[in-house]
Amino acid sequence: MRKEIRLSGFGGQGIILAGVILGRGASLYDNKNAVQTQSYGPEARGGASKSEVVISEEEISFPKVIKPDILVCMSQPAFDKYSMDVKENGYVIVDKDLITIPDDYKNNSKVYRVPFTEIAQKEIGLKIVANIVMLGALTKITNIVSKEAIEKAILDSVPKGTEEKNIEAFEKGYSY
Amino acid sequence: MRKEIRLSGFGGQGIILAGVILGRGASLYDNKNAVQTQSYGPEARGGASKSEVVISEEEISFPKVIKPDILVCMSQPAFDKYSMDVKENGYVIVDKDLITIPDDYKNNSKVYRVPFTEIAQKEIGLKIVANIVMLGALTKITNIVSKEAIEKAILDSVPKGTEEKNIEAFEKGYSY
Repeated sequence: MRKEIRLSGFGGQGIILAGVILGRGASLYDNKNAVQTQSYGPEARGGASKSEVVISEEEISFPKVIKPDILVCMSQPAFDKYSMDVKENGYVIVDKDLITIPDDYKNNSKVYRVPFTEIAQKEIGLKIVANIVMLGALTKITNIVSKEAIEKAILDSVPKGTEEKNIEAFEKGYSY
Repeated sequence: MRKEIRLSGFGGQGIILAGVILGRGASLYDNKNAVQTQSYGPEARGGASKSEVVISEEEISFPKVIKPDILVCMSQPAFDKYSMDVKENGYVIVDKDLITIPDDYKNNSKVYRVPFTEIAQKEIGLKIVANIVMLGALTKITNIVSKEAIEKAILDSVPKGTEEKNIEAFEKGYSY
């Protein structure tokens, strides 16, 4: 089963690292195939950041996300741009404090609002781990990768000395 | 003009970060479009790492590298796997001390041997910046992005406090 994930927000939120961790977790530790893509175009020059991951048990011939099964938004412009473009019964997961969902917003996906950035700041004391809190929530909500796989991929990917804080951030997001 | 770049080596050499920097530099600071892809499959589970970047003045509809214009190899298995698969008149750039080029190796590309890892270790004192030394050499040899663009992208992308060492590493690779 091919699954498409789009992570979106601003530059500096660690969107790319989150995509790398997701791809690594799925492939190295869950034994699937994964392709992870960053597209840089005019919107990147405006400060937007987007990372896409395709996960599949089969070989992945087309690496771009066509219509995501899972959309994560960590900025309002990202939500405004991508929120109508999710698969039926897919997941939309947004940073609760950064995104206002319009009253008339409606699509056929499940919407989750999690305060990634607030959890990172208040519970870990590091706003910069909001991306890892997000991965915790994403893992719990969607089950797209196993908890163990993502935790191992986090340990592989974050700077030395920050492992503990990052795992703590992941757990906070997971158990929110 | 579409240009395809494949960076390959082992996990832990910073291949992915190098791809991210290249994509960012080309798009944010050279005003082109760029797509940067990591594929994780069975070979990643063996410790291999590969990052691909497509750079174009046009929109990029197909993000995968078909036949690279530029191939960088930072491990022998990467060279053995990819070295026959480069565009005519393309560039093959390898870590001089990590790769043995067989006597009978021949293709229609220009081959450069640069001791990325040795320069990183001996001149900067940090083996981990070999990827940035590599970007310096790549920029000088291929001119695929401007020096200024890559330097700005490095400053955006490396951990705070390591900027100076990384720029130094870039310069060493550039002027080798």
